[in-house]
Amino acid sequence: MHRTKIKVAEDALDANTTIAHANRADFDREGVAVVNLMSAPGAGKTTLLERVLADRGETRVGVLEGDVQGSMDADRLSALHIPVVQLNTDGGFGGECHLDANMVRSALPDVQLGKIDLLVIENVGNLVCPAEFRVGEDAKAMVCSVTEGEDKPLKYPLMFRTCDVVVVNKTDLLPHLDFDLDLLLHNIDRVNPEATVMQTSARTGDGTGAFRDWLLGVGREVPVPA
Amino acid sequence: MHRTKIKVAEDALDANTTIAHANRADFDREGVAVVNLMSAPGAGKTTLLERVLADRGETRVGVLEGDVQGSMDADRLSALHIPVVQLNTDGGFGGECHLDANMVRSALPDVQLGKIDLLVIENVGNLVCPAEFRVGEDAKAMVCSVTEGEDKPLKYPLMFRTCDVVVVNKTDLLPHLDFDLDLLLHNIDRVNPEATVMQTSARTGDGTGAFRDWLLGVGREVPVPA
Repeated sequence: MHRTKIKVAEDALDANTTIAHANRADFDREGVAVVNLMSAPGAGKTTLLERVLADRGETRVGVLEGDVQGSMDADRLSALHIPVVQLNTDGGFGGECHLDANMVRSALPDVQLGKIDLLVIENVGNLVCPAEFRVGEDAKAMVCSVTEGEDKPLKYPLMFRTCDVVVVNKTDLLPHLDFDLDLLLHNIDRVNPEATVMQTSARTGDGTGAFRDWLLGVGREVPVPA
Repeated sequence: MHRTKIKVAEDALDANTTIAHANRADFDREGVAVVNLMSAPGAGKTTLLERVLADRGETRVGVLEGDVQGSMDADRLSALHIPVVQLNTDGGFGGECHLDANMVRSALPDVQLGKIDLLVIENVGNLVCPAEFRVGEDAKAMVCSVTEGEDKPLKYPLMFRTCDVVVVNKTDLLPHLDFDLDLLLHNIDRVNPEATVMQTSARTGDGTGAFRDWLLGVGREVPVPA
Protein backbone atom coordinates (compact mmCIF):
# COMPACT_ATOMS: atom_id res chain seq x y z
CA MET A 1 0.00 0.00 0.00
CA HIS A 2 2.75 2.40 0.93
CA ARG A 3 4.50 1.84 -2.39
CA THR A 4 1.30 2.48 -4.29
CA LYS A 5 0.73 5.76 -2.53
CA ILE A 6 4.23 6.93 -3.37
CA LYS A 7 3.73 6.05 -7.00
CA VAL A 8 0.51 8.04 -7.21
CA ALA A 9 2.18 11.08 -5.66
CA GLU A 10 5.09 10.92 -8.06
CA ASP A 11 2.84 10.61 -11.06
CA ALA A 12 0.74 13.54 -9.98
CA LEU A 13 3.79 15.70 -9.40
CA ASP A 14 5.47 14.88 -12.64
CA ALA A 15 3.05 16.22 -15.22
CA ASN A 16 6.03 16.63 -17.54
CA THR A 17 6.55 12.87 -17.71
CA THR A 18 2.88 12.30 -18.45
CA ILE A 19 2.94 14.76 -21.33
CA ALA A 20 6.28 13.44 -22.62
CA HIS A 21 4.65 9.99 -22.85
CA ALA A 22 1.76 11.48 -24.82
CA ASN A 23 4.23 13.14 -27.19
CA ARG A 24 6.09 9.84 -27.53
CA ALA A 25 2.88 8.03 -28.44
CA ASP A 26 2.20 10.59 -31.18
CA PHE A 27 5.75 10.29 -32.52
CA ASP A 28 5.47 6.47 -32.55
CA ARG A 29 2.10 6.50 -34.29
CA GLU A 30 3.55 8.66 -37.07
CA GLY A 31 6.88 6.82 -37.19
CA VAL A 32 8.92 9.90 -36.37
CA ALA A 33 12.29 9.70 -34.61
CA VAL A 34 13.00 12.66 -32.34
CA VAL A 35 16.31 14.13 -31.15
CA ASN A 36 16.56 16.79 -28.44
CA LEU A 37 19.63 18.92 -29.23
CA MET A 38 21.01 21.09 -26.44
CA SER A 39 24.01 23.33 -25.66
CA ALA A 40 25.15 26.56 -24.05
CA PRO A 41 24.37 29.73 -26.01
CA GLY A 42 26.56 30.06 -29.08
CA ALA A 43 28.09 26.56 -29.03
CA GLY A 44 27.10 26.04 -32.65
CA LYS A 45 23.90 23.94 -32.69
CA THR A 46 22.37 25.79 -35.62
CA THR A 47 25.57 25.89 -37.67
CA LEU A 48 26.02 22.16 -37.08
CA LEU A 49 22.43 21.50 -38.20
CA GLU A 50 22.92 23.68 -41.28
CA ARG A 51 25.97 21.62 -42.15
CA VAL A 52 24.55 18.12 -41.63
CA LEU A 53 20.97 18.69 -42.79
CA ALA A 54 22.24 20.01 -46.11
CA ASP A 55 23.32 16.40 -46.65
CA ARG A 56 20.18 14.65 -45.38
CA GLY A 57 19.61 12.37 -48.36
CA GLU A 58 16.10 10.91 -48.53
CA THR A 59 15.31 11.46 -44.86
CA ARG A 60 12.43 13.88 -44.38
CA VAL A 61 13.63 16.11 -41.55
CA GLY A 62 11.72 18.75 -39.62
CA VAL A 63 13.03 21.12 -36.96
CA LEU A 64 11.33 22.51 -33.88
CA GLU A 65 13.32 25.60 -32.94
CA GLY A 66 13.24 26.70 -29.30
CA ASP A 67 14.24 30.25 -28.35
CA VAL A 68 13.22 32.72 -25.68
CA GLN A 69 12.34 35.09 -28.48
CA GLY A 70 13.04 35.72 -32.15
CA SER A 71 13.27 33.33 -35.08
CA MET A 72 16.79 33.86 -36.41
CA ASP A 73 17.84 30.21 -36.20
CA ALA A 74 14.54 29.06 -37.68
CA ASP A 75 15.06 31.43 -40.59
CA ARG A 76 18.57 30.05 -41.17
CA LEU A 77 17.35 26.45 -41.21
CA SER A 78 14.33 27.23 -43.39
CA ALA A 79 16.82 28.09 -46.12
CA LEU A 80 17.51 24.33 -46.34
CA HIS A 81 13.92 23.88 -47.56
CA ILE A 82 12.87 21.83 -44.56
CA PRO A 83 9.82 22.49 -42.40
CA VAL A 84 10.84 24.54 -39.34
CA VAL A 85 8.47 25.51 -36.54
CA GLN A 86 9.48 28.29 -34.15
CA LEU A 87 8.60 27.79 -30.49
CA ASN A 88 9.21 30.93 -28.40
CA THR A 89 9.18 30.61 -24.62
CA ASP A 90 8.57 34.29 -23.87
CA GLY A 91 4.93 34.82 -24.78
CA GLY A 92 2.65 32.22 -23.27
CA PHE A 93 5.43 30.48 -21.37
CA GLY A 94 6.87 33.37 -19.32
CA GLY A 95 10.39 33.48 -20.79
CA GLU A 96 11.34 29.95 -19.80
CA CYS A 97 15.00 28.97 -20.15
CA HIS A 98 14.21 25.50 -21.57
CA LEU A 99 11.66 23.50 -23.49
CA ASP A 100 9.43 21.08 -21.60
CA ALA A 101 7.06 18.39 -22.82
CA ASN A 102 4.04 20.68 -22.69
CA MET A 103 5.67 23.39 -24.79
CA VAL A 104 6.68 20.80 -27.38
CA ARG A 105 3.14 19.40 -27.32
CA SER A 106 1.71 22.84 -27.96
CA ALA A 107 3.74 23.04 -31.17
CA LEU A 108 2.95 19.57 -32.54
CA PRO A 109 -0.13 20.63 -34.54
CA ASP A 110 2.20 22.87 -36.58
CA VAL A 111 4.94 20.26 -36.98
CA GLN A 112 2.95 17.95 -39.27
CA LEU A 113 4.45 14.71 -38.05
CA GLY A 114 2.93 12.76 -40.94
CA LYS A 115 5.26 14.49 -43.38
CA ILE A 116 8.59 13.84 -41.67
CA ASP A 117 10.78 10.91 -40.56
CA LEU A 118 13.00 12.80 -38.10
CA LEU A 119 12.24 15.76 -35.86
CA VAL A 120 15.18 17.69 -34.45
CA ILE A 121 14.24 19.79 -31.44
CA GLU A 122 16.78 22.58 -31.01
CA ASN A 123 16.42 23.53 -27.37
CA VAL A 124 17.00 26.93 -25.74
CA GLY A 125 20.72 27.61 -25.26
CA ASN A 126 21.31 26.67 -21.60
CA LEU A 127 23.38 23.98 -19.87
CA VAL A 128 21.10 23.58 -16.83
CA CYS A 129 17.32 23.24 -17.13
CA PRO A 130 16.91 21.74 -20.63
CA ALA A 131 18.54 18.57 -19.25
CA GLU A 132 15.80 18.24 -16.62
CA PHE A 133 12.81 17.92 -18.95
CA ARG A 134 12.12 14.94 -21.18
CA VAL A 135 9.98 15.91 -24.14
CA GLY A 136 9.33 12.44 -25.58
CA GLU A 137 12.56 12.20 -27.57
CA ASP A 138 14.39 9.04 -28.72
CA ALA A 139 17.79 10.52 -27.94
CA LYS A 140 19.44 13.58 -26.48
CA ALA A 141 22.57 15.17 -27.89
CA MET A 142 24.56 18.19 -26.81
CA VAL A 143 27.09 20.46 -28.45
CA CYS A 144 30.02 21.60 -26.32
CA SER A 145 32.36 24.20 -27.78
CA VAL A 146 36.07 24.02 -27.04
CA THR A 147 35.94 27.77 -26.34
CA GLU A 148 33.87 27.09 -23.20
CA GLY A 149 36.73 25.50 -21.24
CA GLU A 150 37.56 22.01 -20.05
CA ASP A 151 35.56 22.26 -16.82
CA LYS A 152 32.02 22.31 -18.17
CA PRO A 153 31.24 18.58 -17.66
CA LEU A 154 32.09 18.99 -13.97
CA LYS A 155 30.10 22.22 -13.57
CA TYR A 156 27.02 21.06 -15.50
CA PRO A 157 27.11 17.29 -14.94
CA LEU A 158 23.39 16.60 -15.43
CA MET A 159 23.51 17.96 -18.97
CA PHE A 160 26.52 15.84 -19.92
CA ARG A 161 25.14 12.79 -18.09
CA THR A 162 21.72 12.91 -19.73
CA CYS A 163 23.02 12.99 -23.31
CA ASP A 164 23.62 10.00 -25.58
CA VAL A 165 25.97 12.00 -27.77
CA VAL A 166 28.35 14.84 -26.88
CA VAL A 167 29.61 16.82 -29.87
CA VAL A 168 32.83 18.71 -29.13
CA ASN A 169 32.60 21.58 -31.60
CA LYS A 170 34.75 24.44 -32.95
CA THR A 171 37.83 22.21 -33.14
CA ASP A 172 39.19 24.55 -35.85
CA LEU A 173 39.91 27.03 -33.02
CA LEU A 174 42.09 24.62 -31.02
CA PRO A 175 45.41 26.01 -32.32
CA HIS A 176 44.39 29.44 -31.03
CA LEU A 177 43.27 28.46 -27.51
CA ASP A 178 44.93 27.51 -24.24
CA PHE A 179 42.81 24.40 -24.17
CA ASP A 180 43.54 20.85 -23.10
CA LEU A 181 41.32 18.65 -25.28
CA ASP A 182 42.38 15.49 -23.45
CA LEU A 183 41.26 17.03 -20.17
CA LEU A 184 37.83 17.86 -21.60
CA LEU A 185 37.47 14.29 -22.93
CA HIS A 186 38.55 12.96 -19.55
CA ASN A 187 36.00 15.15 -17.78
CA ILE A 188 33.21 14.02 -20.12
CA ASP A 189 34.20 10.41 -19.42
CA ARG A 190 34.11 11.07 -15.67
CA VAL A 191 30.48 12.20 -15.70
CA ASN A 192 29.19 10.05 -18.58
CA PRO A 193 31.37 7.09 -19.61
CA GLU A 194 28.52 5.80 -21.82
CA ALA A 195 28.39 8.89 -24.03
CA THR A 196 29.39 8.75 -27.67
CA VAL A 197 31.79 11.66 -28.13
CA MET A 198 32.38 13.27 -31.51
CA GLN A 199 34.75 16.07 -32.50
CA THR A 200 33.56 18.53 -35.12
CA SER A 201 34.10 21.89 -36.67
CA ALA A 202 30.69 22.92 -37.93
CA ARG A 203 32.40 25.87 -39.60
CA THR A 204 34.78 23.79 -41.75
CA GLY A 205 32.73 20.59 -41.83
CA ASP A 206 35.53 18.59 -40.25
CA GLY A 207 34.16 15.57 -38.44
CA THR A 208 30.51 16.47 -39.03
CA GLY A 209 29.85 13.33 -41.11
CA ALA A 210 29.81 11.15 -38.00
CA PHE A 211 27.18 13.35 -36.38
CA ARG A 212 25.15 13.36 -39.58
CA ASP A 213 25.22 9.55 -39.70
CA TRP A 214 24.22 9.26 -36.05
CA LEU A 215 21.44 11.84 -36.37
CA LEU A 216 19.88 10.30 -39.46
CA GLY A 217 20.12 6.84 -37.88
CA VAL A 218 18.25 7.63 -34.65
CA GLY A 219 15.21 5.42 -34.28
CA ARG A 220 16.18 3.13 -37.14
CA GLU A 221 17.02 -0.51 -36.59
CA VAL A 222 19.78 -0.46 -39.17
CA PRO A 223 22.30 2.37 -38.88
CA VAL A 224 22.75 4.59 -41.90
CA PRO A 225 26.04 3.64 -43.65
CA ALA A 226 28.80 6.21 -43.35
CA MET B 1 -8.80 50.94 -3.37
CA HIS B 2 -8.24 49.04 -6.57
CA ARG B 3 -4.66 50.34 -6.85
CA THR B 4 -3.92 49.36 -3.28
CA LYS B 5 -5.16 45.84 -3.81
CA ILE B 6 -2.96 45.41 -6.86
CA LYS B 7 0.05 46.67 -4.95
CA VAL B 8 -0.54 44.20 -2.13
CA ALA B 9 -0.85 41.34 -4.58
CA GLU B 10 2.38 42.27 -6.36
CA ASP B 11 4.30 42.55 -3.12
CA ALA B 12 3.08 39.19 -1.93
CA LEU B 13 3.98 37.55 -5.20
CA ASP B 14 7.42 39.02 -5.44
CA ALA B 15 9.17 37.62 -2.41
CA ASN B 16 12.42 37.98 -4.35
CA THR B 17 12.12 41.77 -4.34
CA THR B 18 11.42 41.81 -0.61
CA ILE B 19 14.52 39.75 0.11
CA ALA B 20 16.64 41.75 -2.34
CA HIS B 21 15.71 44.87 -0.36
CA ALA B 22 16.77 43.15 2.86
CA ASN B 23 20.11 42.22 1.27
CA ARG B 24 20.51 45.81 0.06
CA ALA B 25 19.93 47.13 3.57
CA ASP B 26 22.65 44.83 4.89
CA PHE B 27 25.08 45.88 2.15
CA ASP B 28 24.37 49.57 2.87
CA ARG B 29 24.81 49.16 6.61
CA GLU B 30 28.23 47.61 6.04
CA GLY B 31 29.18 50.01 3.24
CA VAL B 32 29.66 47.23 0.70
CA ALA B 33 29.19 47.79 -3.03
CA VAL B 34 27.83 44.74 -4.87
CA VAL B 35 28.14 43.72 -8.52
CA ASN B 36 26.15 40.86 -10.06
CA LEU B 37 28.32 39.37 -12.84
CA MET B 38 26.60 37.16 -15.40
CA SER B 39 27.29 35.37 -18.69
CA ALA B 40 26.73 32.21 -20.70
CA PRO B 41 28.80 29.19 -19.62
CA GLY B 42 32.44 29.60 -20.55
CA ALA B 43 32.34 33.26 -21.57
CA GLY B 44 35.27 34.03 -19.28
CA LYS B 45 33.84 35.58 -16.08
CA THR B 46 36.32 33.83 -13.79
CA THR B 47 39.34 34.50 -15.98
CA LEU B 48 38.34 38.17 -16.18
CA LEU B 49 38.00 38.34 -12.39
CA GLU B 50 41.38 36.63 -11.95
CA ARG B 51 42.90 39.27 -14.19
CA VAL B 52 41.34 42.39 -12.69
CA LEU B 53 41.25 41.36 -9.03
CA ALA B 54 44.98 40.66 -9.10
CA ASP B 55 45.26 44.45 -9.49
CA ARG B 56 42.70 45.51 -6.88
CA GLY B 57 44.87 47.98 -4.99
CA GLU B 58 43.56 48.84 -1.53
CA THR B 59 39.98 47.74 -2.22
CA ARG B 60 38.94 44.83 -0.01
CA VAL B 61 37.12 42.52 -2.43
CA GLY B 62 35.10 39.40 -1.68
CA VAL B 63 33.51 36.98 -4.15
CA LEU B 64 30.30 34.99 -3.87
CA GLU B 65 30.65 32.19 -6.41
CA GLY B 66 27.46 30.69 -7.83
CA ASP B 67 27.52 27.28 -9.49
CA VAL B 68 25.12 24.38 -9.82
CA GLN B 69 27.79 22.24 -8.23
CA GLY B 70 31.52 22.16 -7.60
CA SER B 71 33.90 24.87 -6.45
CA MET B 72 36.44 25.09 -9.26
CA ASP B 73 36.01 28.81 -9.89
CA ALA B 74 36.04 29.57 -6.17
CA ASP B 75 39.30 27.66 -5.85
CA ARG B 76 40.83 29.67 -8.71
CA LEU B 77 39.82 32.98 -7.15
CA SER B 78 40.92 31.97 -3.66
CA ALA B 79 44.45 31.85 -5.05
CA LEU B 80 44.26 35.66 -5.17
CA HIS B 81 44.06 35.65 -1.36
CA ILE B 82 40.59 37.14 -1.27
CA PRO B 83 37.63 35.73 0.67
CA VAL B 84 35.52 33.55 -1.64
CA VAL B 85 32.27 31.88 -0.60
CA GLN B 86 30.88 29.07 -2.74
CA LEU B 87 27.10 28.98 -3.23
CA ASN B 88 25.92 25.79 -4.92
CA THR B 89 22.38 25.64 -6.24
CA ASP B 90 22.09 21.86 -6.38
CA GLY B 91 21.73 20.85 -2.74
CA GLY B 92 19.10 22.82 -0.89
CA PHE B 93 18.02 24.77 -3.95
CA GLY B 94 17.11 21.97 -6.38
CA GLY B 95 19.72 22.58 -9.09
CA GLU B 96 18.56 26.10 -9.94
CA CYS B 97 19.99 27.72 -13.07
CA HIS B 98 20.45 31.13 -11.43
CA LEU B 99 21.02 32.89 -8.13
CA ASP B 100 18.10 34.68 -6.51
CA ALA B 101 17.93 37.05 -3.55
CA ASN B 102 17.14 34.30 -1.08
CA MET B 103 20.11 32.15 -2.11
CA VAL B 104 22.41 35.15 -1.80
CA ARG B 105 20.88 35.94 1.59
CA SER B 106 21.55 32.39 2.77
CA ALA B 107 25.27 32.90 2.06
CA LEU B 108 25.66 36.33 3.70
CA PRO B 109 26.62 35.00 7.15
CA ASP B 110 29.68 33.43 5.49
CA VAL B 111 30.57 36.48 3.42
CA GLN B 112 31.59 38.69 6.38
CA LEU B 113 30.44 41.96 4.90
CA GLY B 114 32.25 43.95 7.60
CA LYS B 115 35.60 42.94 6.16
CA ILE B 116 35.08 43.92 2.51
CA ASP B 117 34.34 47.02 0.42
CA LEU B 118 33.16 45.27 -2.74
CA LEU B 119 31.32 41.98 -3.21
CA VAL B 120 31.38 40.43 -6.67
CA ILE B 121 28.61 37.86 -7.15
CA GLU B 122 29.58 35.51 -9.98
CA ASN B 123 26.25 34.11 -11.09
CA VAL B 124 25.52 30.69 -12.63
CA GLY B 125 26.49 30.58 -16.32
CA ASN B 126 23.16 31.19 -18.08
CA LEU B 127 21.82 33.97 -20.33
CA VAL B 128 18.17 33.62 -19.30
CA CYS B 129 17.07 33.37 -15.67
CA PRO B 130 19.91 35.17 -13.83
CA ALA B 131 18.68 38.38 -15.49
CA GLU B 132 15.24 37.96 -13.91
CA PHE B 133 16.29 38.04 -10.24
CA ARG B 134 17.61 41.10 -8.44
CA VAL B 135 19.75 40.13 -5.48
CA GLY B 136 20.28 43.59 -3.94
CA GLU B 137 23.21 44.60 -6.15
CA ASP B 138 24.37 48.11 -7.06
CA ALA B 139 25.09 47.14 -10.65
CA LYS B 140 24.83 44.26 -13.07
CA ALA B 141 27.50 43.38 -15.61
CA MET B 142 27.70 40.64 -18.20
CA VAL B 143 30.46 39.02 -20.19
CA CYS B 144 29.71 38.15 -23.79
CA SER B 145 32.30 36.15 -25.71
CA VAL B 146 32.89 36.86 -29.38
CA THR B 147 32.82 33.08 -29.94
CA GLU B 148 29.09 33.05 -29.12
CA GLY B 149 28.01 34.83 -32.31
CA GLU B 150 26.63 38.27 -33.10
CA ASP B 151 23.00 37.34 -32.49
CA LYS B 152 23.00 36.85 -28.73
CA PRO B 153 21.65 40.32 -27.78
CA LEU B 154 18.61 39.65 -29.96
CA LYS B 155 18.08 36.11 -28.64
CA TYR B 156 18.59 36.93 -24.96
CA PRO B 157 17.49 40.59 -24.83
CA LEU B 158 16.51 40.70 -21.15
CA MET B 159 20.07 39.79 -20.10
CA PHE B 160 21.63 42.47 -22.28
CA ARG B 161 18.95 45.02 -21.33
CA THR B 162 19.29 44.52 -17.58
CA CYS B 163 23.06 45.06 -17.47
CA ASP B 164 24.85 48.36 -16.85
CA VAL B 165 28.03 47.04 -18.43
CA VAL B 166 28.52 44.55 -21.28
CA VAL B 167 32.05 43.16 -21.56
CA VAL B 168 32.80 41.75 -25.02
CA ASN B 169 35.48 39.20 -24.22
CA LYS B 170 37.95 36.91 -26.04
CA THR B 171 38.83 39.62 -28.53
CA ASP B 172 42.18 37.87 -29.05
CA LEU B 173 40.24 35.24 -31.05
CA LEU B 174 38.75 37.75 -33.52
CA PRO B 175 41.36 37.07 -36.25
CA HIS B 176 40.37 33.39 -36.18
CA LEU B 177 36.57 33.77 -36.33
CA ASP B 178 33.98 34.60 -38.96
CA PHE B 179 32.65 37.29 -36.69
CA ASP B 180 31.32 40.78 -37.36
CA LEU B 181 32.20 42.79 -34.25
CA ASP B 182 30.36 45.86 -35.55
CA LEU B 183 27.20 43.79 -35.91
CA LEU B 184 27.46 42.57 -32.30
CA LEU B 185 27.96 46.15 -31.08
CA HIS B 186 25.00 47.26 -33.17
CA ASN B 187 22.84 44.48 -31.72
CA ILE B 188 23.85 45.39 -28.14
CA ASP B 189 22.94 49.01 -28.92
CA ARG B 190 19.56 47.93 -30.30
CA VAL B 191 18.51 46.22 -27.06
CA ASN B 192 20.37 48.43 -24.57
CA PRO B 193 21.57 51.82 -25.88
CA GLU B 194 22.40 52.85 -22.29
CA ALA B 195 24.92 50.05 -21.69
CA THR B 196 28.60 50.79 -21.25
CA VAL B 197 30.35 48.39 -23.63
CA MET B 198 33.94 47.30 -23.11
CA GLN B 199 36.14 45.05 -25.25
CA THR B 200 38.55 42.76 -23.45
CA SER B 201 40.74 39.73 -23.76
CA ALA B 202 40.86 38.29 -20.25
CA ARG B 203 43.50 35.88 -21.55
CA THR B 204 45.98 38.55 -22.72
CA GLY B 205 44.77 41.36 -20.44
CA ASP B 206 43.99 43.59 -23.38
CA GLY B 207 41.32 46.14 -22.42
CA THR B 208 40.74 44.72 -18.95
CA GLY B 209 41.91 47.90 -17.22
CA ALA B 210 38.67 49.68 -18.09
CA PHE B 211 36.63 46.90 -16.52
CA ARG B 212 38.87 46.92 -13.45
CA ASP B 213 38.37 50.67 -13.04
CA TRP B 214 34.61 50.39 -13.43
CA LEU B 215 34.35 47.42 -11.04
CA LEU B 216 36.41 49.03 -8.28
CA GLY B 217 34.46 52.28 -8.71
CA VAL B 218 30.97 50.81 -8.28
CA GLY B 219 29.15 52.41 -5.36
CA ARG B 220 31.77 55.17 -4.96
CA GLU B 221 30.92 58.80 -5.52
CA VAL B 222 34.28 59.54 -7.12
CA PRO B 223 35.35 57.14 -9.88
CA VAL B 224 38.67 55.38 -9.43
CA PRO B 225 41.26 57.07 -11.67
CA ALA B 226 42.40 55.00 -14.64
